[in-house]
Amino acid sequence: MSKKSPSKFSIGIIQMAFTKKPKENVKNAVKWIEKAATQKAQVICLPELFTSQYFCQSENIDFYDLAEPLDGPSIKEVSKAAAKNKVVVIAPFFEKRAVGVYHNSAAIIDADGTIAGLYRKMHIPDDPAFYEKFYFTPGDLGFKSFDTEFGNIGTLICWDQWYPEGARLTALQGASVLFYPTAIGWHPKEKEEHGKAQFESWQTVQRGHAIANGVYVAAANRIGLEKQNPNSAGIEFWGRSFICDPQGIILAEASTDREEVLIAEVDLDRIEYIRRNWPFLRDRRIDAYGGITERLID
Amino acid sequence: MSKKSPSKFSIGIIQMAFTKKPKENVKNAVKWIEKAATQKAQVICLPELFTSQYFCQSENIDFYDLAEPLDGPSIKEVSKAAAKNKVVVIAPFFEKRAVGVYHNSAAIIDADGTIAGLYRKMHIPDDPAFYEKFYFTPGDLGFKSFDTEFGNIGTLICWDQWYPEGARLTALQGASVLFYPTAIGWHPKEKEEHGKAQFESWQTVQRGHAIANGVYVAAANRIGLEKQNPNSAGIEFWGRSFICDPQGIILAEASTDREEVLIAEVDLDRIEYIRRNWPFLRDRRIDAYGGITERLID
Repeated sequence: MSKKSPSKFSIGIIQMAFTKKPKENVKNAVKWIEKAATQKAQVICLPELFTSQYFCQSENIDFYDLAEPLDGPSIKEVSKAAAKNKVVVIAPFFEKRAVGVYHNSAAIIDADGTIAGLYRKMHIPDDPAFYEKFYFTPGDLGFKSFDTEFGNIGTLICWDQWYPEGARLTALQGASVLFYPTAIGWHPKEKEEHGKAQFESWQTVQRGHAIANGVYVAAANRIGLEKQNPNSAGIEFWGRSFICDPQGIILAEASTDREEVLIAEVDLDRIEYIRRNWPFLRDRRIDAYGGITERLID
Repeated sequence: MSKKSPSKFSIGIIQMAFTKKPKENVKNAVKWIEKAATQKAQVICLPELFTSQYFCQSENIDFYDLAEPLDGPSIKEVSKAAAKNKVVVIAPFFEKRAVGVYHNSAAIIDADGTIAGLYRKMHIPDDPAFYEKFYFTPGDLGFKSFDTEFGNIGTLICWDQWYPEGARLTALQGASVLFYPTAIGWHPKEKEEHGKAQFESWQTVQRGHAIANGVYVAAANRIGLEKQNPNSAGIEFWGRSFICDPQGIILAEASTDREEVLIAEVDLDRIEYIRRNWPFLRDRRIDAYGGITERLID
């Protein structure tokens, strides 16, 4: 339960573009947090790795310079904005935990600017131009929900969105909404043939998590064509951030190419209504799920 | 792997209406199996409880008369049709296991008419007019995949479709396709307000299982307004049986109100292509999924 257990709270999903300059990105993020707060958002989520362009397009040790500790300057700036606007902010960042140990993390900043919790991305992808296994140690804090000023929320990060286990384990801890800060896009040469199917798979699997768990789901993606050098094709981040309700109904969806904020209401009475009518959590066969911890059952 | 490991096989999903007479239903099912075989289907799936109307609309001990053992006359008839047409058939039936122990089961009948396996519905619903906990002991055989003449397949039944755990555990055993024989419909008085969202949730969560696991999914539903007595509103079974591919793309979808057969191809090379490009199974955090066997993490 949340600290104050209100029956409703408002969430804001920020869809942004990013420049090569971290300070500019932080400043832009703060501007969008203020805009979202003006629109009455109480829990605001930034996209994955919000201080930088998506540097994982190549394996380059110089990019470790972009990492900061949880008490570093970027999270401090966002904490100030959270306190000033009295909003909760999910700030996903490149975490420097120790020399040689870095994570793809999200700071959950409470409405007074204090740190309510930390999530470290559990599932780490590695695909051409998404070389995350090079940069990020897989999370060791497990799947978590966080009690904030306005409600109990969970966050996962990007690649986590393909894993029903992560959604389930977060929902079982009481989260009313699962946030998925994301950096997903098209390889430009694949877009025409596969782009529509890739987007639809991405959205569908997350709507599935909402339905299976009776929770809201909110995905915050970035936009823009980011190239690490002029000769590369780069990645075209597809935007289309969205929020869906516990029945998987889309409440708000963003464009593919504009910075914007999506606002929606998380209504605990709606969760109660859906879970009473379709009481999936009642009938889970926990006696028969042990094999989930196997790699394969072969 | 399947016995012969062909790289492709064809599946047929039968969408049927049901009368109050089991013999008529079995005869009609055999007719549809033959039609599907004529259209080159190799693995054919009938809807849930294929010998009867959906008797769970009320709690009435007389309906136990509808149950049959695995070697009873209805499964024998279907086995004959399977052998005659050289097709695999998933025949979901009301199983009498012992006096006082009944299951909602599916016989997997191989192409020579022998029994390749038995699945007993693991997740048992209980909602107004879906009083399944009265009739069916929850399955005790676990989640399973089956090696058949044409390929490795899994089956779950209806309410199982809301549980990502069941889909995952079946896919981890090597199934290329998850069949979901089903009896789902609208309460007529709810249809206008909630009907569209209910159908879409049902289809979306199953497409999500396809995407998360890189498998085909095929759902076989019944049609028709079934009333147990003239004064009840009954249930309007919504049809819309469908087949989707490992990316969640709909390959075939049936009407809401006609008996029909859907045919699609299961292509193991397509599964390989999808799983190579989005290697979700590679990155599962099996070290961190233990909580899945908890009821809640509270």
